Amino acid sequence: CFLSALDEVKPAFGVHEEDLHDCIKGGILKYSPKIDHIMERVRRALEQTQSSEKFNFSSLLLYGPAGSGKTALAAYLGLESKFPFIRIITADEMIGMSESAKVQFIDNTFRDAYKSPLNVLIVDDIEALIDFVPIGPRFSPVILRALMSRLKKSPPDGHRLIVLATSSNYELLKSLDILNCFNDEILINNLTSLQELYGVMELAPFGRDSSERKEIISKLKAAYGSEKINVSIKKVLFNIDTAKFGKNPADEFVQLMVEGHH
Amino acid sequence: CFLSALDEVKPAFGVHEEDLHDCIKGGILKYSPKIDHIMERVRRALEQTQSSEKFNFSSLLLYGPAGSGKTALAAYLGLESKFPFIRIITADEMIGMSESAKVQFIDNTFRDAYKSPLNVLIVDDIEALIDFVPIGPRFSPVILRALMSRLKKSPPDGHRLIVLATSSNYELLKSLDILNCFNDEILINNLTSLQELYGVMELAPFGRDSSERKEIISKLKAAYGSEKINVSIKKVLFNIDTAKFGKNPADEFVQLMVEGHH
Amino acid sequence: CFLSALDEVKPAFGVHEEDLHDCIKGGILKYSPKIDHIMERVRRALEQTQSSEKFNFSSLLLYGPAGSGKTALAAYLGLESKFPFIRIITADEMIGMSESAKVQFIDNTFRDAYKSPLNVLIVDDIEALIDFVPIGPRFSPVILRALMSRLKKSPPDGHRLIVLATSSNYELLKSLDILNCFNDEILINNLTSLQELYGVMELAPFGRDSSERKEIISKLKAAYGSEKINVSIKKVLFNIDTAKFGKNPADEFVQLMVEGHH
Amino acid sequence: CFLSALDEVKPAFGVHEEDLHDCIKGGILKYSPKIDHIMERVRRALEQTQSSEKFNFSSLLLYGPAGSGKTALAAYLGLESKFPFIRIITADEMIGMSESAKVQFIDNTFRDAYKSPLNVLIVDDIEALIDFVPIGPRFSPVILRALMSRLKKSPPDGHRLIVLATSSNYELLKSLDILNCFNDEILINNLTSLQELYGVMELAPFGRDSSERKEIISKLKAAYGSEKINVSIKKVLFNIDTAKFGKNPADEFVQLMVEGHH
Amino acid sequence: CFLSALDEVKPAFGVHEEDLHDCIKGGILKYSPKIDHIMERVRRALEQTQSSEKFNFSSLLLYGPAGSGKTALAAYLGLESKFPFIRIITADEMIGMSESAKVQFIDNTFRDAYKSPLNVLIVDDIEALIDFVPIGPRFSPVILRALMSRLKKSPPDGHRLIVLATSSNYELLKSLDILNCFNDEILINNLTSLQELYGVMELAPFGRDSSERKEIISKLKAAYGSEKINVSIKKVLFNIDTAKFGKNPADEFVQLMVEGHH
Amino acid sequence: CFLSALDEVKPAFGVHEEDLHDCIKGGILKYSPKIDHIMERVRRALEQTQSSEKFNFSSLLLYGPAGSGKTALAAYLGLESKFPFIRIITADEMIGMSESAKVQFIDNTFRDAYKSPLNVLIVDDIEALIDFVPIGPRFSPVILRALMSRLKKSPPDGHRLIVLATSSNYELLKSLDILNCFNDEILINNLTSLQELYGVMELAPFGRDSSERKEIISKLKAAYGSEKINVSIKKVLFNIDTAKFGKNPADEFVQLMVEGHH
Ligand SMILES: Nc1ncnc2c1ncn2[C@@H]1O[C@H](COP(=O)(O)OP(=O)(O)OP(=O)(O)O)[C@@H](O)[C@H]1O
Ligand SMILES: Nc1ncnc2c1ncn2[C@@H]1O[C@H](COP(=O)(O)OP(=O)(O)OP(=O)(O)O)[C@@H](O)[C@H]1O
Ligand SMILES: Nc1ncnc2c1ncn2[C@@H]1O[C@H](COP(=O)(O)OP(=O)(O)OP(=O)(O)O)[C@@H](O)[C@H]1O
Ligand SMILES: Nc1ncnc2c1ncn2[C@@H]1O[C@H](COP(=O)(O)OP(=O)(O)OP(=O)(O)O)[C@@H](O)[C@H]1O
Ligand SMILES: Nc1ncnc2c1ncn2[C@@H]1O[C@H](COP(=O)(O)OP(=O)(O)OP(=O)(O)O)[C@@H](O)[C@H]1O
Ligand SMILES: Nc1ncnc2c1ncn2[C@@H]1O[C@H](COP(=O)(O)OP(=O)(O)OP(=O)(O)O)[C@@H](O)[C@H]1O
Ligand SMILES: [Mg+2]
Ligand SMILES: [Mg+2]
Ligand SMILES: [Mg+2]
Ligand SMILES: [Mg+2]
Ligand SMILES: [Mg+2]
Ligand SMILES: [Mg+2]
Repeated sequence: CFLSALDEVKPAFGVHEEDLHDCIKGGILKYSPKIDHIMERVRRALEQTQSSEKFNFSSLLLYGPAGSGKTALAAYLGLESKFPFIRIITADEMIGMSESAKVQFIDNTFRDAYKSPLNVLIVDDIEALIDFVPIGPRFSPVILRALMSRLKKSPPDGHRLIVLATSSNYELLKSLDILNCFNDEILINNLTSLQELYGVMELAPFGRDSSERKEIISKLKAAYGSEKINVSIKKVLFNIDTAKFGKNPADEFVQLMVEGHH
Repeated sequence: CFLSALDEVKPAFGVHEEDLHDCIKGGILKYSPKIDHIMERVRRALEQTQSSEKFNFSSLLLYGPAGSGKTALAAYLGLESKFPFIRIITADEMIGMSESAKVQFIDNTFRDAYKSPLNVLIVDDIEALIDFVPIGPRFSPVILRALMSRLKKSPPDGHRLIVLATSSNYELLKSLDILNCFNDEILINNLTSLQELYGVMELAPFGRDSSERKEIISKLKAAYGSEKINVSIKKVLFNIDTAKFGKNPADEFVQLMVEGHH
Repeated sequence: CFLSALDEVKPAFGVHEEDLHDCIKGGILKYSPKIDHIMERVRRALEQTQSSEKFNFSSLLLYGPAGSGKTALAAYLGLESKFPFIRIITADEMIGMSESAKVQFIDNTFRDAYKSPLNVLIVDDIEALIDFVPIGPRFSPVILRALMSRLKKSPPDGHRLIVLATSSNYELLKSLDILNCFNDEILINNLTSLQELYGVMELAPFGRDSSERKEIISKLKAAYGSEKINVSIKKVLFNIDTAKFGKNPADEFVQLMVEGHH
Repeated sequence: CFLSALDEVKPAFGVHEEDLHDCIKGGILKYSPKIDHIMERVRRALEQTQSSEKFNFSSLLLYGPAGSGKTALAAYLGLESKFPFIRIITADEMIGMSESAKVQFIDNTFRDAYKSPLNVLIVDDIEALIDFVPIGPRFSPVILRALMSRLKKSPPDGHRLIVLATSSNYELLKSLDILNCFNDEILINNLTSLQELYGVMELAPFGRDSSERKEIISKLKAAYGSEKINVSIKKVLFNIDTAKFGKNPADEFVQLMVEGHH
Repeated sequence: CFLSALDEVKPAFGVHEEDLHDCIKGGILKYSPKIDHIMERVRRALEQTQSSEKFNFSSLLLYGPAGSGKTALAAYLGLESKFPFIRIITADEMIGMSESAKVQFIDNTFRDAYKSPLNVLIVDDIEALIDFVPIGPRFSPVILRALMSRLKKSPPDGHRLIVLATSSNYELLKSLDILNCFNDEILINNLTSLQELYGVMELAPFGRDSSERKEIISKLKAAYGSEKINVSIKKVLFNIDTAKFGKNPADEFVQLMVEGHH
Repeated sequence: CFLSALDEVKPAFGVHEEDLHDCIKGGILKYSPKIDHIMERVRRALEQTQSSEKFNFSSLLLYGPAGSGKTALAAYLGLESKFPFIRIITADEMIGMSESAKVQFIDNTFRDAYKSPLNVLIVDDIEALIDFVPIGPRFSPVILRALMSRLKKSPPDGHRLIVLATSSNYELLKSLDILNCFNDEILINNLTSLQELYGVMELAPFGRDSSERKEIISKLKAAYGSEKINVSIKKVLFNIDTAKFGKNPADEFVQLMVEGHH
């Protein structure tokens, strides 16, 4: 076969644990029941991939705003699956490669993900992988098309694969007509209420005690004029860290949250 | 002759059965008489190709929405023809090739398809083959033009060829002015009514018995507020499979069908 | 001279009869007096090219809708001329070549067409030669300019050349400002009336006898609601062939003509 | 100096008479006093180039519609000058060259045109040289810029050069902001009246005698409904030639002139 | 690992003091309390990078109009930090490199910035680094994406890095969707009042004494008709220098400030 | 250092007198006091560059319509400065180079301009250097960015450099956002009144005596209907030269000035 030479690359079984743990350095805080619902849905797909009689392939899209935890959740659930092959494709591995080398790299990783009986492949940040830039817009149609082909292609018999792809630009994927490459789409949202923020502070933990946390919440409510917020978990965790370097961490935190609020 | 070196590639007779069977893993369920009508029309063209005194070449377009079964039907009818040469050109075989290598690959496959007395060539997913992306839009004019040349060119005397091309973007083909490359155009549509969905459940089969199936249908009718649906056979079969992993498969199926309904 | 190396290619005198006969497999049916008028006009130009004291070069444009018979007529009249050198340039000979190789190929063929005292060169389907695609639009400006240069350039003294170019996009040629490269423009139109269709059936022949043909015509008139039609001779001949595989060819033909009618 | 290697090309003195005579195969018919006016103006520039104490360089633009005689007049007046170096740059010499080879070729020809004490360089059909195509529009900015640099650059001391450039798209040159590269602009127009056409017929000559010519003119006046015409000298001469192959050349000529009239 | 060869470049520890001092040749004049506020904010981030238990990476954006002092402040605070590795990436180091060499160069500098325990990397003038030009607009999507990947990527454990990026086009960064690559955004503004200008004159120093300075200010107030100004510190310092070459430096300065005022 | 190989090019001290004198073949006629004002302003900058304690670098923009004398003035004032290194970068030196070779060439010339203690570098016709063409518009962003980097970069300590850049498209430079690369902008305008034209005639000299010159002026005033004109010094000097070849030079000159007047 034409491309058989490519198959002769050295087998790549195993799990790149380090790469994956890097993605969940901030842990997975269950600051709201929505986190459990997300996990359920991904786990059901993992189970189907493992046991279905009809389908040996499934691809999921995790989408949501920047910093909402898409990559962390994909990595966490991938590791939890205990599948023998778990790998992540990220743009930063491909910096400096030519467009065709990137296509080759992505394609090879997919082919590696056909080698074990049970495989998880995380396709992280589709926009970054296709070199998308909103002005123009510009992106690599060739990488995109290669991804689309792979996202619709089952592995050979005897092999099972689940792809977890992440993206922070749902509208783009729609315009690119690639949503039909996925069997399911799961929204990973930002923190949307002060109650969820309270949950994060409890679990981080941040604030001397629950009364300080409540005070923080009531100050923020006053500042925002509402219970509703829209901040990423990543930003919250960074602000908590910054605040610790202030004289009065609680006040510092409130100030940082208010400054960054648009 | 200028390109004669290309003809010296090793003969490629025979049928790539495996590739073709991969396309019909979900079988061909005759969930509606429309499936038979489609098949009739393709078979007539196969017969004409085989026996016409005037024309040793014919090209058909199978078009319709994503997942409607275009590729599966083309593969099924190709295999059924028992022509000695049956081959499929798909984008995923060409991942990583340069544009000119892709043109070469497509052209060589067409030339291979002139070698046996009776040949079927499936040109699968034209948009993917020309690296089409709707934003821009972008695509390879060179691959497109090569395809167009081949789609209008009869094989040499003593050889007969039918091309079955698939596409999910009819309007695009129109704008690209390539519809006149085809001798016939056949629509492969989605499931359009709950009755057709009932047909699929019976044949899959799904549901303990016909009364459970009827219940499912009536629940969906309530949810949709109509008999009319617009779901691909591919999606239905995947939902049936997912549902089986739920506690109550029938309910799970209803829920999946309702969630995915826009 | 700078490009002299190019002239050393082996002499290419003679007529590529096979290529040219391939273009008129469907014959030239004189289904209407307009066919004679077209032929007259081309023949006058051939005579002028052969005998003019002032001009040893002439270029004609044959334009009209897809399948109207442009290529067939050019090939037929070229062969009929009995000029010692008759050659056709088509896009499918150049599939897989780089843009610059295409320019070279076209240019070399023109140079070959200067070698005999009397030469016919058919430049078939200008849009295909310049890799034109209406979306964008995209095309090769370099190939276009090379063609334009050659379409305005007389052969050296002692040599005479007539170019017969075909195109199905007159408006494009106008926008590209290349119409002034031609000494004459001849429209090759579709069948425009049921009477012309009757002529084709008689000559094909199709229909058991003239009464069956008349019946067909009257059925079509009823279906179309008019005497006027707009179908290509190529499509009509294919439908006639398809119809022969139906149980009742006459009815089958009517149905095919009605279906394909927009 | 950086580019000195380029200067070592073999000297290229002399006049390429053949190339230049090819451009005036149809002669220079003085069918109207305007032809003399044009010639005067070019001759004045030739004289200035030859004798000026201040300027050893001058560049003229000859512009006007397709076929109006720009190239013929430039070639004629160039030859008439008897300057020791007279050369023409045309697009057809550069077919098949890469963009950078074209730049090199043009630049080298200019450098050659610095080698004799008195030089004429005809830069024929600027649009063709820069590969201009109106759709887009597309053209080579690199060739254009190279031309512009050369069109503003005096030869070294002791050398004198006049450039005669032709173009049929004055508005384009304006948009490209290159008109200020020229010291003078001269319009070469089409035939604009039946009287001028009469002049051409007399000089060609065409028509048995002056009474036949007058008859032709009066028929055309009737057909056009006006004395005004707008036809190129090139077209008129071709029609005269074609007409000679008709049974009645005068009538044939009238018909050709009327058909081609928009 | 795929890119491991890149890591074998010679270690690049240390501080490029000279490059950094070049950026602060005009000193850092504290002409307004806003300068201190800016410095505070950058210093807090430096402290967090050095001591945080959770985050070993932080990236700051310094943005503001041309000449406002972004590069100077970044260089000054970088040097002040005494981190063992302090480096600046500027466009002028990369002049003449191909796009891919630029990506490689940037990436290598980031990798170098992972080698010491504490690292400062100044990414100077993002627009220049990505070859941004507002007409089009044009820029290198590939360099941009490489930067974005690096601006979101923590160094390996045991290494800490703070990135100080500068830009004078905040709206562009917003449109490019790269603001979420930064943990904090700090505005470095122009001089906005005559009072700040007075501060600069005192510190430069410029003007014989405070009464001359006051006179200058009052003349400018009269000329501008307002206390508000919008001039860069860079322009002010250059004007002061130019003025010294005039006969009456104070008047010359006023004139220069008024001329350059739009 | 990465680019050190480039520094090893042979030292290039000295003044390219010939190139510079070529630019002022028409002399510098002080036809109006504005010429002195321009010279003053450039001389002040030259002095500052030579003696400033703070700044060892300055860049000036000379802008104005085509032929107004920008290049001539830059060359004249450069030569007058007697700086040991004076060089001009022009587009015609770079004809035939690739884009990257052009960048290299420009960059090397700048580096050469750092080698002497006192350097003048004329960057002539920015539009030509960046291959700007108004249709599109098209230009080389890479050359532009390289220029911008160099136009903002001081030479190493111990070296002083003044850049004199010319452009005839101020609005373009504004749109390209490169005006802030310059420390001063000086308008070099066309002749704007008949009085200035009189000045030129006196200095050229042209006209037998002052009464003939006055007659010319009064004829022109009548023809233009105004004292105001807008002609370049270059055009005026060329017309004077052409007129000398007429029978009555004075009348010929009036006619040429009126013809070229829009
Ligand atoms: N419940 C949670 N879900 C996801 N991430 C969490 C959760 N709790 C804490 N985190 C931490 O929050 C951070 C989320 O960042 P992450 O990079 O995964 O977001 P992202 O959505 O992938 O961002 P981007 O759009 O920039 O790729 C991680 O450090 C993660 O460990
Ligand atoms: N009657 C049927 N017609 C077609 N496919 C059927 C039918 N019944 C079941 N199937 C199954 O449904 C699936 C249809 O998917 P297929 O890939 O052929 O769709 P498609 O239209 O080619 O999709 P795409 O637009 O993504 O290329 C196949 O797995 C096929 O086996
Ligand atoms: N009178 C006729 N004129 C032209 N072709 C005819 C005529 N009668 C029969 N034919 C047949 O009709 C067919 C016309 O097809 P042809 O490829 O020449 O059309 P075309 O206009 O070149 O199409 P395209 O636009 O696709 O290039 C040929 O097979 C030809 O033999
Ligand atoms: N008075 C004349 N002026 C110019 N050409 C004339 C004249 N009389 C006869 N001719 C002939 O007319 C023809 C003019 O064609 P020519 O190619 O020079 O036109 P052109 O303007 O250069 O056309 P194009 O725009 O296509 O380049 C030549 O064959 C020339 O010999
Ligand atoms: N308080 C200050 N802040 C910043 N720069 C100052 C200050 N006081 C004096 N300067 C001097 O002002 C100049 C500021 O120029 P600098 O190049 O840093 O500006 P910039 O904002 O980076 O400009 P650009 O947008 O062109 O990159 C430097 O020479 C610096 O030494
Ligand atoms: N006072 C003057 N200032 C400038 N040039 C003068 C003056 N007097 C005479 N000249 C002559 O006028 C000509 C001006 O042409 P120059 O090429 O310098 O113009 P330019 O503005 O650079 O044109 P372009 O926009 O085409 O580059 C030169 O030949 C110069 O010697
Ligand atoms: Mg992520
Ligand atoms: Mg398909
Ligand atoms: Mg044809
Ligand atoms: Mg011409
Ligand atoms: Mg800066
Ligand atoms: Mg100039």
